Amino acid sequence: MNNKNLLLVISGPAGSGKGTVVKEIMKESDSFAYSVSATTRQPRPGEVDGVNYYFVTREEFEENIKNDSLIEYTQYCGNYYGTINSKVKEALKEKNVILEIEVEGAMNVKKKFPDAVLVLLLPPDFKTLEARLRGRATETEDVIKARLEKSKIEMGCFEQYDYVVINKDEGAKKAALDIINITKSEIQRTSRRLEVKEHFYE
Amino acid sequence: MNNKNLLLVISGPAGSGKGTVVKEIMKESDSFAYSVSATTRQPRPGEVDGVNYYFVTREEFEENIKNDSLIEYTQYCGNYYGTINSKVKEALKEKNVILEIEVEGAMNVKKKFPDAVLVLLLPPDFKTLEARLRGRATETEDVIKARLEKSKIEMGCFEQYDYVVINKDEGAKKAALDIINITKSEIQRTSRRLEVKEHFYE
Repeated sequence: MNNKNLLLVISGPAGSGKGTVVKEIMKESDSFAYSVSATTRQPRPGEVDGVNYYFVTREEFEENIKNDSLIEYTQYCGNYYGTINSKVKEALKEKNVILEIEVEGAMNVKKKFPDAVLVLLLPPDFKTLEARLRGRATETEDVIKARLEKSKIEMGCFEQYDYVVINKDEGAKKAALDIINITKSEIQRTSRRLEVKEHFYE
Repeated sequence: MNNKNLLLVISGPAGSGKGTVVKEIMKESDSFAYSVSATTRQPRPGEVDGVNYYFVTREEFEENIKNDSLIEYTQYCGNYYGTINSKVKEALKEKNVILEIEVEGAMNVKKKFPDAVLVLLLPPDFKTLEARLRGRATETEDVIKARLEKSKIEMGCFEQYDYVVINKDEGAKKAALDIINITKSEIQRTSRRLEVKEHFYE
């Protein structure tokens, strides 16, 4: 067991490239694990319990809410999605754990895990964000507008994040390496190494 | 001009390998400059004003003290040594600036430059520190004992440092790369990137 592993929260507006960056992190380093969320929605074909999600019943999920066993949760299209405290703690024994979640959830994580490191992933500017969302061409104008509006609300939590990483257009690898680097650096923070002082004169 | 350059303070007990690590940092990266101290001692043969030290008169130095133009200063063997505020600010326009100073001076820097990043360089343990000091074989037992005692006092400021980097026996390069990494990571801290938020919706 290594108690120095970090809980890394990665947020960013739709179009920031979160998903790709997280995949790149996993590709570049084997010291990260992806936190698996719990959900009440039905598994889609090919989805595996404990890999894609922990698939639980509505009763189980609400029991978790009642017991304060979730770090954060949200409802979307009538289904619950959330992060189970004990699962994260278990995963942290082995590796750094990445939680890719929205701003509101991130703020809750910080409350329950004050040692968590919060990274806000952003495109270089608003124009790029807009261009990326339009470039997807899978969403209606209304959805795009709603997402851009939401990005403004999310930006309100800017100062609550520990780091801001810019995901430029040349690919997600640079941003992934930046985040890996931040993790290595954070592990050397004095507040995470108090045992060094404790044991130095033994 | 880049206002994102860092003032990096590196402290560590005698035997921590500070000097070698700083040299390695300069070798591995060209984005660091070494802060040149001012002193009232006479230049030794080969020493160049503005390179090894700024050689100043006692009157000039005391004028600087009076005008609060020094970030920190100390007296040693009857001579003054100190860091001139304006010289550091000038150097910061071009590169990250490394200040290799003692714990007491480091605390003063933090007061005058709250954005400075303080790194404490330590050997893996006290035995290694002792072995390194004895291994030099150039110092008397009294000096060695005094230095070991001093290291205990210095350790009292442990929590005031932002990072603790361990300089293991396999060479200073690893510690140097750690410190370069810390610098890159610190530049991405939200508190240093407030302009990103400001300009995002322009």
